[in-house]
Amino acid sequence: MVKKVLKFGGTSVGTVERISYVANIIKKEHSTGNKIIAVVSAMSGKTNELIKISKEISEEFSKRELDVLLSSGEQVTSALLSGALIKLGIKAKSWMNWQIPILTDGEHSNARIINMHIDKINKFLDEDGVVIIPGFQGISKNGDITTIGRGGSDATAVAVAKILSADTCEIYTDVDGVYSSDPNKIPVAKKIDKISYDEMLELSSLGAKVMQSSAVQTAMMYDIPLEVKSTFSERKGTKIFNQDNIDYTKSVTGVAYSKDDAKVTIIGVEDRPGVAANIFEPLSKAQINVDMVIQNISSDHKTTDITFTVKRDDVLKTKQILKESAKIKYREIVENNKVAKISIVGAGMVSTPGVTYRMFRALSDENINILAISTSEIKLSVIIEEDNTLKAIKKLHTTFELE
Amino acid sequence: MVKKVLKFGGTSVGTVERISYVANIIKKEHSTGNKIIAVVSAMSGKTNELIKISKEISEEFSKRELDVLLSSGEQVTSALLSGALIKLGIKAKSWMNWQIPILTDGEHSNARIINMHIDKINKFLDEDGVVIIPGFQGISKNGDITTIGRGGSDATAVAVAKILSADTCEIYTDVDGVYSSDPNKIPVAKKIDKISYDEMLELSSLGAKVMQSSAVQTAMMYDIPLEVKSTFSERKGTKIFNQDNIDYTKSVTGVAYSKDDAKVTIIGVEDRPGVAANIFEPLSKAQINVDMVIQNISSDHKTTDITFTVKRDDVLKTKQILKESAKIKYREIVENNKVAKISIVGAGMVSTPGVTYRMFRALSDENINILAISTSEIKLSVIIEEDNTLKAIKKLHTTFELE
Repeated sequence: MVKKVLKFGGTSVGTVERISYVANIIKKEHSTGNKIIAVVSAMSGKTNELIKISKEISEEFSKRELDVLLSSGEQVTSALLSGALIKLGIKAKSWMNWQIPILTDGEHSNARIINMHIDKINKFLDEDGVVIIPGFQGISKNGDITTIGRGGSDATAVAVAKILSADTCEIYTDVDGVYSSDPNKIPVAKKIDKISYDEMLELSSLGAKVMQSSAVQTAMMYDIPLEVKSTFSERKGTKIFNQDNIDYTKSVTGVAYSKDDAKVTIIGVEDRPGVAANIFEPLSKAQINVDMVIQNISSDHKTTDITFTVKRDDVLKTKQILKESAKIKYREIVENNKVAKISIVGAGMVSTPGVTYRMFRALSDENINILAISTSEIKLSVIIEEDNTLKAIKKLHTTFELE
Repeated sequence: MVKKVLKFGGTSVGTVERISYVANIIKKEHSTGNKIIAVVSAMSGKTNELIKISKEISEEFSKRELDVLLSSGEQVTSALLSGALIKLGIKAKSWMNWQIPILTDGEHSNARIINMHIDKINKFLDEDGVVIIPGFQGISKNGDITTIGRGGSDATAVAVAKILSADTCEIYTDVDGVYSSDPNKIPVAKKIDKISYDEMLELSSLGAKVMQSSAVQTAMMYDIPLEVKSTFSERKGTKIFNQDNIDYTKSVTGVAYSKDDAKVTIIGVEDRPGVAANIFEPLSKAQINVDMVIQNISSDHKTTDITFTVKRDDVLKTKQILKESAKIKYREIVENNKVAKISIVGAGMVSTPGVTYRMFRALSDENINILAISTSEIKLSVIIEEDNTLKAIKKLHTTFELE
């Protein structure tokens, strides 16, 4: 007998038909003797609709009341799914977070689950009951409703799996797993069967939004095996676990990209200690996230050029701050908004020589100019001209045998 | 300083604009130093929408889960109204029923409020806070969400007023009070300034659906002054209280009517003891509500005719039961679906001689034939041909000076 947490996202429970369909998935899992805890999101679109209404009342809508408002979405789905299971003859029960309770640190709209009472839940599971829990929320120590941030139902699922010592946590969604790249845009992208937590984190931070990052982090920390799979197909999904458990046959697992970066170059900066700090300190204070930084040594050894990337939305603010800062002397600022960041991700990279070289060679073969480079243990990112994005991703798929 | 419970129905909180408008009403009441507890319904249409969704999943949707589902409607309104008040600079807080808690007898979809913890609420009121409570629901002893029947927000408001010892309970709705008859259909109908609980109960049981009857009964039992008024106008509403507090200048307060009755006559029944019991016992067992009964003594003293009224929906079932009952012998059953019940209601009737006579004379003046009569302390009902309904109501308004 296996104890499973199954999480169903907004599109999986977006209509009455889909909720009935999900009930059948749960019935099948339950009929094999598994203990099932289902964590559900609000019906797709519902949370945005409620946020919109709150903004019509006030742009600065009370955070406490926003949590009361938004938590109703998952409450509705929980009741409907439980009703659908009961109709199928299964003993099921929706458990509101206050009925369990699931306790959070109390911060509104961005809370963290810190504990959960398990006796009643375990008793109900022992009595062959299916437990339905609304995701994305919890109860603070002083009894307020708190929510845990967008996509928070993933975090609920993983926290519940951890606290109930579940054997596995399955994330049912509208894609059938994690892909080497976005399958809607990159036709050669291939589904990944197994991936490590680290790789999953790098991919999701790079734009492959399948699971919420903090949920993956929690799973990694407590070694909870995850599986991302489709609600609407019987295909195997992507298993996510500790990389020790993965037998890597390939050095690179996936190719991620993002198109919201911009490149800023400050030309003719004084080349002396403390200059970089003078540039990046005011940006950091203004909450501008600087991603990659490159510094070229100038021929005259007196001035240098500094290139870095920021989000496109931050470019104007960045230039304004640089211009207003008395400490920074430079000749010119040049920006390029038409760039893309391409990253190869793979836990096998660190032990495979030549991955870096092969990436640069592959791009060079396609006449793609590299504008900036950044590396980590399991990731290698480059900035290229935006127009070359698809060509680059395709070539990297071929190079690293991801097709 | 006055402690007030203000209840806002579904149409009063049906849109964002209306919720903001209601927030202004509360602000005004609060600014005069009153302690305010607002009880809110779900936005108009919401409860029906949720019921429809549940029926799409199952016609026999779990009652426990239906209560979880439906209670979300008032939760949403509470959060929005509280947010709107906070925007106006008022200290406000939505209190879910489990946070208070409000305790019910535990029956799903038809629960009764039996108690409520008041310390936290009174403390918040003392701190100048406005309390927002979702109506229509409560928590059972074993911690389940229960709802208290359609229109249950009225019952919540009155129960909260009773338990918190509020000075008054105001029911804000989409009409500006209780009328002598339905103002949409009877243009001569006039708003009633003051009415007793009994009269209100008779009027609402006769089709003037302004407030839920059980809420009026509770208010009567605990002598809680009610006021029904419009959310959308500044006009005075209708005050409802103990009839000892009303100085009656008129014997009749209102004229109610209903058009869903039918008249059934059993012709040629044996005229001997026990016959009436034989007729009405099987009807009662089949949950058929018999309203008025008339028995004419026959000329031959051997058979009689018995006439009674039932709801139109029950006519077929009534005839079937009478035909199948071996104990009842009769010659013929005649029915008339085209009848209306007209009632005059007034706490002053019992002490005013001649009201009965004046009603009959008034109808006779209009050539309206009376098919059946029934009387109580504060009500006099007659069955007439349906076509005469408007003519009768108008004439009775003139006769009893209600215009």
